[in-house]
Amino acid sequence: MEQNFTYQQLYDFCHAIFSRVGCNETDADTASKALISADLRGVDSHGVARLTGYVRLWEANRINATPELKVIHETPSTAVVDGDSGLGLVVAPYAMQVAIDKAKNAGTGWVSVQNSNHFGIAGYHAMMALPHDMIGIAMTNASPLVSPTFSTERLLGTNPIAVAIPAGKQPPFVADFATTTAANGKLEILQRKNKPVPDGWVQTKNGSPSNNAHELKEGGALLPLGGDREHGSHKGYMLGSIVDIFSAILSGANYGPWVPPFPAYVPMPENMPGKGIGHFFGAMRIDAFRPAQDFKDNMDQWITRFKQSATVEGEHAVIIPGEPEAAMEKERMEKGIDLLNVVVEDLRGLGNRFGIGF
Amino acid sequence: MEQNFTYQQLYDFCHAIFSRVGCNETDADTASKALISADLRGVDSHGVARLTGYVRLWEANRINATPELKVIHETPSTAVVDGDSGLGLVVAPYAMQVAIDKAKNAGTGWVSVQNSNHFGIAGYHAMMALPHDMIGIAMTNASPLVSPTFSTERLLGTNPIAVAIPAGKQPPFVADFATTTAANGKLEILQRKNKPVPDGWVQTKNGSPSNNAHELKEGGALLPLGGDREHGSHKGYMLGSIVDIFSAILSGANYGPWVPPFPAYVPMPENMPGKGIGHFFGAMRIDAFRPAQDFKDNMDQWITRFKQSATVEGEHAVIIPGEPEAAMEKERMEKGIDLLNVVVEDLRGLGNRFGIGF
Repeated sequence: MEQNFTYQQLYDFCHAIFSRVGCNETDADTASKALISADLRGVDSHGVARLTGYVRLWEANRINATPELKVIHETPSTAVVDGDSGLGLVVAPYAMQVAIDKAKNAGTGWVSVQNSNHFGIAGYHAMMALPHDMIGIAMTNASPLVSPTFSTERLLGTNPIAVAIPAGKQPPFVADFATTTAANGKLEILQRKNKPVPDGWVQTKNGSPSNNAHELKEGGALLPLGGDREHGSHKGYMLGSIVDIFSAILSGANYGPWVPPFPAYVPMPENMPGKGIGHFFGAMRIDAFRPAQDFKDNMDQWITRFKQSATVEGEHAVIIPGEPEAAMEKERMEKGIDLLNVVVEDLRGLGNRFGIGF
Repeated sequence: MEQNFTYQQLYDFCHAIFSRVGCNETDADTASKALISADLRGVDSHGVARLTGYVRLWEANRINATPELKVIHETPSTAVVDGDSGLGLVVAPYAMQVAIDKAKNAGTGWVSVQNSNHFGIAGYHAMMALPHDMIGIAMTNASPLVSPTFSTERLLGTNPIAVAIPAGKQPPFVADFATTTAANGKLEILQRKNKPVPDGWVQTKNGSPSNNAHELKEGGALLPLGGDREHGSHKGYMLGSIVDIFSAILSGANYGPWVPPFPAYVPMPENMPGKGIGHFFGAMRIDAFRPAQDFKDNMDQWITRFKQSATVEGEHAVIIPGEPEAAMEKERMEKGIDLLNVVVEDLRGLGNRFGIGF
């Protein structure tokens, strides 16, 4: 059911494909690294499995392979970046770098992005801040699949938030999560297995509770973190809304139900109020607040205390955000990355069309 | 069961009490406004019902009524404030003002606070940004009552996040929520009614699911937003952790299980690594990103679209965060504020001790 590939094999293939659609050497490199970071970290739904999707967007003239990325407005600690319809995988690292550069001078940097596309996993971009002893923040809006509390319409995306925080001897704290009860990728796994989904993940098109993993195809919607009002779904709805507003209304991108869909075959919304999809990035220099070493010592104590916590029966330990993903990355760099046959076939078909072996 | 008071009656009483414990005129005014904003907005658990608790902390020498608030470190867009053990109700508005002043010059301002105490409702402080055409952010850590996913220990507070965003003709978007499935105040309401709580709100001291509203008194814990792993509690745990780290590890306050308890009779944790409790504030000038009017026009469209959404059966409308609270504030300013008899008696007792009528 699966085949194993080395990181280098996936990198070479992605790089060749991005180059073939017109990306320059630097952008092909940037996009490949951002994309495959998802496979390395175990977020298989956002890695090379999506490469064909990006190519289809390019074929539909919705992605510009040679964007002119630029800052269109700025202050000492802020900027708005125009992604020029470029690959989100290229636009996001550019914008995050602007945030980091601002933070070097002003203490923090905050960048809202218009006119972009799907940027892969949020965590990758947030983690760019770590080598600079900065906290990194990344978020993005996305195609509407989520109904706010009490709504039957899809008005928000899964709108993820990532926050990467340096530690000392301990690995960094890296949170990266959709603001829904479960990310779409989790739903897709249960679809493939033809299994029901837990309560609070999806609703029918009329807004009734559902356990059908295929509910989205029947007009239903994903639910905000919390699931229903009694379990705090209004908080997940607020979080998703904040991501939407920071990413798109601060930048001039599309928001809410007007966010362009990722699948190229889905028609674009009518009367779109902005440009492309939106992202939001932040970088905060630790020593703009405290000496970095003091901060890291405290982070190590925080992490150690949480890891040593007593646990409920059947669980080994409290999980520190980012630890399982870091372990997965180490393992997959050493032992390679297993791809589902259906993904391998899809990539081989793509390679054949471009004369690139895989 | 309830008695009605005007805003002015509550203000005069709080002002007199704060003055009597030693606050100067300005601080008594600031603290009274911050405290009663909770009653006005319908967050009764965080309003005048807590006045006696603050006084007890002062009596236990845990609150300094004449703090010397100061910025102990800063860059163009950041600062760390030392609250000098002052009332959080005074420290927080001071720190938020620093963030706003930073934003005027640098585009954004970010302030982490050490050595503070309970600051009332987060939303009040975040909303200070609105008249400046800024987005306001406020968060705080709090006494440990929450178990991370898989833990049986109380390692986090309910650690709320507030985000206030200006709109144009529509009222502002104001999110203000605990990062738990339900805030402690909701639990207290069910305790008083002797009713069970829904699944996913609390667990027993062994980490088993529970519907007992009194579970905290028996060694149990509140649960992070999501309730359990299957419903995304790791996301609530990550959110609560981020609030803890931004509020306390960036500032040098206490974090995790070492956060000082609000009730004065609960002993302080041993080996505390920092000073007091921590807060974190942010202010982002809208026009550091886009012309404010363009932003507000888009916000109005966003709000209008969400309000006009089709709804599930039995619900009138999708709720815009902050709207119910704003409506409540208007109503209570006009018609007065109903306080439970038990709260009124508590306040009268307090007044008698200080020779202040109520």
